[in-house]
Amino acid sequence: MEPKDYMARALELAQRAADCGDVPVGALIVRNGEILAEAYNEKESLKVPSCHAEMLAIERAALKLDRWRLIDCDLYVTLEPCLMCAGAIVQARLRSVIYGAKDPKAGAVESIYQVLSDGRLNHRPLLVSGVLEQECSEMLKNFFAERRK
Amino acid sequence: MEPKDYMARALELAQRAADCGDVPVGALIVRNGEILAEAYNEKESLKVPSCHAEMLAIERAALKLDRWRLIDCDLYVTLEPCLMCAGAIVQARLRSVIYGAKDPKAGAVESIYQVLSDGRLNHRPLLVSGVLEQECSEMLKNFFAERRK
Repeated sequence: MEPKDYMARALELAQRAADCGDVPVGALIVRNGEILAEAYNEKESLKVPSCHAEMLAIERAALKLDRWRLIDCDLYVTLEPCLMCAGAIVQARLRSVIYGAKDPKAGAVESIYQVLSDGRLNHRPLLVSGVLEQECSEMLKNFFAERRK
Repeated sequence: MEPKDYMARALELAQRAADCGDVPVGALIVRNGEILAEAYNEKESLKVPSCHAEMLAIERAALKLDRWRLIDCDLYVTLEPCLMCAGAIVQARLRSVIYGAKDPKAGAVESIYQVLSDGRLNHRPLLVSGVLEQECSEMLKNFFAERRK
């Protein structure tokens, strides 16, 4: 599978979030070509503020590997991570982060902060942005347009 | 109870983390003078990178109140929150954050970032630092000194 195939799967997960009334963001963690953990944003449905897709995917991957260091794992996520999730990516020492759409208002990778390129922190993952960017961005736009109706 | 009484309780929780081999950080969430949730750092013992004291306290408080908005709640924590936890505090809309020791290497409230005073983010809690600072700081110092032996 190629990056855009993993991102297509993350988009399917994002759709599940939208179906439950949550902002559509999907994430997965890949190790040695295998999908280790999948998640989608469940903040509204679980009523827990930290239940973003990335947080749940990281937690599930760590439980599966029985270790908190995810140095051999890659995170795919449909939207640029926020500060909380970028901080969790540093904590988890993820090898790389691949995302789709930018988040100009709250993105902490390139938009309002550049946390994952900060030399003062003890980990800097590889970064790839813009994978299936248009599809990821359109799913979010449609969700908010629908909600305004 | 006064702020330093809540912080003394957070220090007791921090000691439990140390007893399990985790960096001693304790946290609690208070609402209307009542302790709603307690937690300590369980990153090493649970082997989950996101299981900092603050994250667990926020999650437990949200589950208890059955809502993710913690606008009427105050977080007490023995150490200045990191980026992940500061991001979670914004997500949870906590009313105030009271902490003990500064974290010059990773603190995201006043040390390396000032996330909770950032006008671009959609929430800024009240901030109080230095409550039982010396006790909080000494517990951490002793833990690391012990570990180096």
